[in-house]
Amino acid sequence: VSSASPTSDAEVHALAEAADEACSALESLGRQGRAALLRDIADRIDAARDQLVEIGHRETAIPVERLRGEAIRTSYQARFFADVLEEGSYLEATIDHAGTTPMGPGPDLRKLLVPIGPVAVFGASNFPLAFSVLGGDTVSALAAGCPVVIKAHHSHPELSRASYELLRVAVDAAQLPEATVGLVHGTSAGARLVAERAIAAVGFTGSLGGGEALMRSIRDRPDPIPFYGELSSINPVIITPGAARARADEIAAGLVASVTTSAGQLCTKPGVVIVPRGEAGDDLLTRVIELTANEPARILLNERITHGYLDFVARAKSSAVPDLVMEGLPGEGVAATIFEIDAESVTPDLIEETFGPTTLVIRADPDQLAGVIDALPGSLTATVQGEPDEAELVRTLFDTLRPKAGRLLYGGFPTGVLVAWAQNHGGPWPATNTQYTSVGADSIRTGLAAAFGTPRC
Amino acid sequence: VSSASPTSDAEVHALAEAADEACSALESLGRQGRAALLRDIADRIDAARDQLVEIGHRETAIPVERLRGEAIRTSYQARFFADVLEEGSYLEATIDHAGTTPMGPGPDLRKLLVPIGPVAVFGASNFPLAFSVLGGDTVSALAAGCPVVIKAHHSHPELSRASYELLRVAVDAAQLPEATVGLVHGTSAGARLVAERAIAAVGFTGSLGGGEALMRSIRDRPDPIPFYGELSSINPVIITPGAARARADEIAAGLVASVTTSAGQLCTKPGVVIVPRGEAGDDLLTRVIELTANEPARILLNERITHGYLDFVARAKSSAVPDLVMEGLPGEGVAATIFEIDAESVTPDLIEETFGPTTLVIRADPDQLAGVIDALPGSLTATVQGEPDEAELVRTLFDTLRPKAGRLLYGGFPTGVLVAWAQNHGGPWPATNTQYTSVGADSIRTGLAAAFGTPRC
Repeated sequence: VSSASPTSDAEVHALAEAADEACSALESLGRQGRAALLRDIADRIDAARDQLVEIGHRETAIPVERLRGEAIRTSYQARFFADVLEEGSYLEATIDHAGTTPMGPGPDLRKLLVPIGPVAVFGASNFPLAFSVLGGDTVSALAAGCPVVIKAHHSHPELSRASYELLRVAVDAAQLPEATVGLVHGTSAGARLVAERAIAAVGFTGSLGGGEALMRSIRDRPDPIPFYGELSSINPVIITPGAARARADEIAAGLVASVTTSAGQLCTKPGVVIVPRGEAGDDLLTRVIELTANEPARILLNERITHGYLDFVARAKSSAVPDLVMEGLPGEGVAATIFEIDAESVTPDLIEETFGPTTLVIRADPDQLAGVIDALPGSLTATVQGEPDEAELVRTLFDTLRPKAGRLLYGGFPTGVLVAWAQNHGGPWPATNTQYTSVGADSIRTGLAAAFGTPRC
Repeated sequence: VSSASPTSDAEVHALAEAADEACSALESLGRQGRAALLRDIADRIDAARDQLVEIGHRETAIPVERLRGEAIRTSYQARFFADVLEEGSYLEATIDHAGTTPMGPGPDLRKLLVPIGPVAVFGASNFPLAFSVLGGDTVSALAAGCPVVIKAHHSHPELSRASYELLRVAVDAAQLPEATVGLVHGTSAGARLVAERAIAAVGFTGSLGGGEALMRSIRDRPDPIPFYGELSSINPVIITPGAARARADEIAAGLVASVTTSAGQLCTKPGVVIVPRGEAGDDLLTRVIELTANEPARILLNERITHGYLDFVARAKSSAVPDLVMEGLPGEGVAATIFEIDAESVTPDLIEETFGPTTLVIRADPDQLAGVIDALPGSLTATVQGEPDEAELVRTLFDTLRPKAGRLLYGGFPTGVLVAWAQNHGGPWPATNTQYTSVGADSIRTGLAAAFGTPRC
């Protein structure tokens, strides 16, 4: 793996100050001009796809096919935010005309969301294109009218540089200041970045520990700024007795695919699967085990994630609970694992996000579901696999799950997040803002603030 | 002043848990049902106006006339949120229909803001009706579908109880659980309240110190919850040379009224006034001084605020800067004061919110304006008094002020905040959320969260 020399404090400061000075040029481009910039970035991503995929594959070991799909998503989301700009409702433009009100004469009041200022964007390891330098946080902030300073993820420094170069050329072609986009390397540069006076908001998708460290830096500012973080997610999947009876094959195949896709390193990977006790649940689990037995080993994104996964598996194997019920094929990388535990034995410390191809099957009777769900932390998603004749049970489950997750799925699996107008990729803690999403049209809000009123000039 | 015995930890816990259990009944009322509840509360406020005003006047020394106006605003805002419910766009309902997308087949995605759960509301001292038990945070949370547990302000415990009783009767009439509204007393009960598992969000308008203490309690939760706080505001008013020349009488009268109304205890009181150096500015200041000389003494809301004001005046008088240029009439309560300082002598510690009838006049040349504005902390409002032939200067001032304030006024004065669709009563730190307002339609967002998608059942 290549590496990058860390950016010095002085360089971080200079980039943040220069980004601040670049604000007015980017805002002055207007919505049409910024839409054109985003479409140009998208065209450049498409044109550079093979090169980006080649570097990304070399640095991250993510399969070429998956990276090609991610590259298509990355240019798609840049074009999507161009559409969001042209549609315009993100501005939340609201007018109260001057006139008489029950409270006396009212002035002309106008409200509009405006760019907040330079946004610090933290690249994630698991989507080196779609959630990194060229990712959603970058293009949504540029759409909002905010320069960005991006902290490169150490797992893919060369791809980060190539991505940044692409942005720099696009910014230059739009005759914007070079500092409209900036790139820094290194953990300490990231901490310094969020403390910079000129930085007005932070977008972060990553680990709970990393996010909490940044939040502490932000608290120490004289003016704590908004932090939009998505810090981990369990993504429970609940399989009803009816679904286990009716669709064991389909559910087992979908589940194993969802747990192992991208080597289990997606924010929305099912980390907990609640399977009914009894024969139907046993049969379902048997099929999950059969499929897992043939899963090939997979190379994880970096050493930290690999060690974390292997530690987790070793600890789980040596504990009284849960039981390892199947381990996939050995080979280069790590083997997939499936663990099982009874609802009675679940404790909060057993339920934590683990990157890698593993999931915890909790066996529960219907009357234990509410208790198990209550013990789960907040998640980005929660999924119910149920049958039409279980409407009452499904409704009760969704009522219980709603405060626990930002996106509820009836059927399907939570991996595979569409970039769309109604997408919600956020939720309760450990996401930091209950009205925020990092995927979908509303993610433009990271870069927006300070609605203002009464401009009569 | 009457007092209330502090609510015990056990009682706070019981109220929070009971509020949680009351969620589904309030949500099940639906938007029409909650609109009816809010209109019923408004009718009850109107019917009880004389009684509420009498208690409030006795406890807070706020003049009866001002309290009557506040009572009218309080019922108006309850009815306003009934309108917000019926209008419905606050739900941010968004649909992506299932179909083919450039990223492959897309599922049916639906997004909707939903009630977040019980909201802790902190009553403020300076609006014992409109920002207290019956205030905007309470009715907007009920509108959103969230039970409330209210921390009474110690300055008006009897009014808080009478207000709570009114809410309790309305909730009972709507056949809702009694715990749909709860009331607690005491600082430690407030800290305990925001730590309660069942509390899902906090609305707070008050001091920076009080707000930061609550934020620390929230951080210690296993699941930090959203805190919507407005913690202090300087509200700079900038008078251009042209405005000083053209409208000295009008501006002086408006300014003194805005500084002294409600004894200078409004969140939007102008705490800093930037007046041009030179003859026109001198003339304007002379008129401000003449008017202030005849301002009567005023009784402040409570002992803490009175001590704070007297300490501030004593410290300012004994310091080298600023200069006390006029003190109003002595009498029961405190005298109004006007201080003056040159732009060169301004330091950040001289610019802090002081409740009470005082303001700091900063004398500045045009080329000093940017530097003075840069030294100001964030505010709820910023006002420019300019003339039509100064369009270029006014535009530059607004560009400089925009990152500093949530509401920009051209002409007028910042006190007097209309409850309306486009109102913005928020801003950058020391407001805690740049997309939040505590007055106006969007304040319903305190009670909203967890948009959700893909419900195919």
